[in-house]
Amino acid sequence: MRTDGFRFELVATAGKARAGILHTPRGPVPTPVFMPVGTAGTVKAMTARELAEPPLDARIILGNTYHLYLRPGLEVIEACGGLHRFAGWDRPILTDSGGFQVFSLAAINEIDDDGVTFRSHIDGSQHRLTPEQSMAIQRVLGSDVAMCFDECPPAGADGGAHDRAMARTTAWAARCARAERAPGQALFGIVQGGTDVDRRRRHLDQLAPMDFDGYALGGLSVGESSAETYRVLDAVAAELPADRPRYLMGVGTPDDLAHGVAAGIDMFDCVMPTRNARNGALFTGEGRLNIANARFRLDTAPLDADCPCETCRTVSRAYLRHLFMAREILYSRLASLHNLTHYAGTMARLRERIVREGRAA
Amino acid sequence: MRTDGFRFELVATAGKARAGILHTPRGPVPTPVFMPVGTAGTVKAMTARELAEPPLDARIILGNTYHLYLRPGLEVIEACGGLHRFAGWDRPILTDSGGFQVFSLAAINEIDDDGVTFRSHIDGSQHRLTPEQSMAIQRVLGSDVAMCFDECPPAGADGGAHDRAMARTTAWAARCARAERAPGQALFGIVQGGTDVDRRRRHLDQLAPMDFDGYALGGLSVGESSAETYRVLDAVAAELPADRPRYLMGVGTPDDLAHGVAAGIDMFDCVMPTRNARNGALFTGEGRLNIANARFRLDTAPLDADCPCETCRTVSRAYLRHLFMAREILYSRLASLHNLTHYAGTMARLRERIVREGRAA
Repeated sequence: MRTDGFRFELVATAGKARAGILHTPRGPVPTPVFMPVGTAGTVKAMTARELAEPPLDARIILGNTYHLYLRPGLEVIEACGGLHRFAGWDRPILTDSGGFQVFSLAAINEIDDDGVTFRSHIDGSQHRLTPEQSMAIQRVLGSDVAMCFDECPPAGADGGAHDRAMARTTAWAARCARAERAPGQALFGIVQGGTDVDRRRRHLDQLAPMDFDGYALGGLSVGESSAETYRVLDAVAAELPADRPRYLMGVGTPDDLAHGVAAGIDMFDCVMPTRNARNGALFTGEGRLNIANARFRLDTAPLDADCPCETCRTVSRAYLRHLFMAREILYSRLASLHNLTHYAGTMARLRERIVREGRAA
Repeated sequence: MRTDGFRFELVATAGKARAGILHTPRGPVPTPVFMPVGTAGTVKAMTARELAEPPLDARIILGNTYHLYLRPGLEVIEACGGLHRFAGWDRPILTDSGGFQVFSLAAINEIDDDGVTFRSHIDGSQHRLTPEQSMAIQRVLGSDVAMCFDECPPAGADGGAHDRAMARTTAWAARCARAERAPGQALFGIVQGGTDVDRRRRHLDQLAPMDFDGYALGGLSVGESSAETYRVLDAVAAELPADRPRYLMGVGTPDDLAHGVAAGIDMFDCVMPTRNARNGALFTGEGRLNIANARFRLDTAPLDADCPCETCRTVSRAYLRHLFMAREILYSRLASLHNLTHYAGTMARLRERIVREGRAA
């Protein structure tokens, strides 16, 4: 089922770590890559132009099927010619399927083999998502990469619950693969199975023959310890098909990204850089800091002297702290720009190192 | 008392309307000019770079003595080398004296001939502002134009209250004129007197001999009707010294600006473009619109097809409405950028017309 115009090129490997290029109809994406999350048609506090400008230079962003379906609704996005034109973003977009959000945000009324009935977290209205409906929404959104609709068991689910979710996710993946897609839209499968490595392998064995354009690990970093996440990653990531992009969903800290890359992951997304930014937690080369801390009150140094972002080039920690304490909108802008640039820089450095120290593919 | 490096150059006149250039040590400001308000060290939702970029190209912004004194406090701004460096803005700044804010935002404990004792609107802490203290704060802020500390009677004050406020404002102006200032910092006097034209003229007669670098009309648009504001403006604006910049404080709508310019005003400030933007009220060539209105739900047109701002060049009304309804930070950014650009364009067109249709000075 490989999609025309969509291709993963392996550039270099260093151990399990890979440097590559994800070729898409809307341009190439050097990997490993972190994808900023644009939940509701906007990467929070950022313009499309700012996201694309170097040094941040985001090559692909995420959109959320669940959120966009509920608000503004498909009629609006269809009238506006799809999510790219709606949001003024002409580079690639990956949309998740709504699976994770339905299971984590909505009030679930019913899960059956056909799909999920739930109530909106915005207004309580009742809706139903099925694999076909998720694909129909993603088709209207017109994302460059669609994800299969999956069942995400809650943290702490027992083995039986994982087995049932895997069976359902496999059946739903087959239905997603048969659904009509937007022109050039790739489709990724999602491997579930919790923290049990054997279960992960069994699920991958079910999905691999379906020949998806890429493979994701879902259901990690949902409450288990980092050690557990890493154990699964170390065992499973490099077993995902080597000629397809490998995507670790919803993860994580800069350390998690480094660990994921070392384990063989190519793509990541997480709300952490933008959400933490808004809450005062800023990432620097010397670790995370809380800008509300009184020690920054008179600190005239830039947030991170080694960071090339506009925030670090133009204002001080004292100014950022003032804006945060005064709840100024500009704070969220400057902080989000910085954290996203920090993440992009982290990924670029990991990639350079693989290319420099690894073997050409 | 004219300040070195600060000079008002008259370029053309059309009736009472004037086109000029305010020369300051931090660069020239073509007038008439609208000054975006940066209350707490930031024009809300805007970066300094964005303010300076064409087509907005703000040449001077406002800072608030009252707000900045309370938060972050002078120690912080002094440590950061003044307000310009603190906020990363290298063009001119005008600071108001704190007078208007003390009388409109704070809980007043006592007004006497020496100054005002009040409680902070942020944390209830008690503070005292005097003409000397206001000037000392403005000196630390390092603004390019300082304003005299004035008493602003509430809307509906009787004649006696206005007379007492005028006498006090005159005495305070003399004390401000004697205070030490930052290098190159100009000082403007503020004419009070409510809506009584004779009172305004009497107050101007007291202040004119003090030879301030510029003259402002305070205490207008504080609750009286537009007709009353315009009556005072029409009578008094052109009587302010012709060789100094004339500043109408805290006004107003695009129509108010046009009226003020026609009456002979050179400088304006108001929170309206940014505050209204955040509340959904957007200015266009065809009037004000409320972006929450359902008629914009599927409206793929730009907010204002004739506006050169990034918002109007890149996104639709439908997208702006979605961001507003979803309370996205990006909405406030795009809306503020647009409204400020609309105001700047309004002033630029008024100026061009004076130059084109008026007489060279």
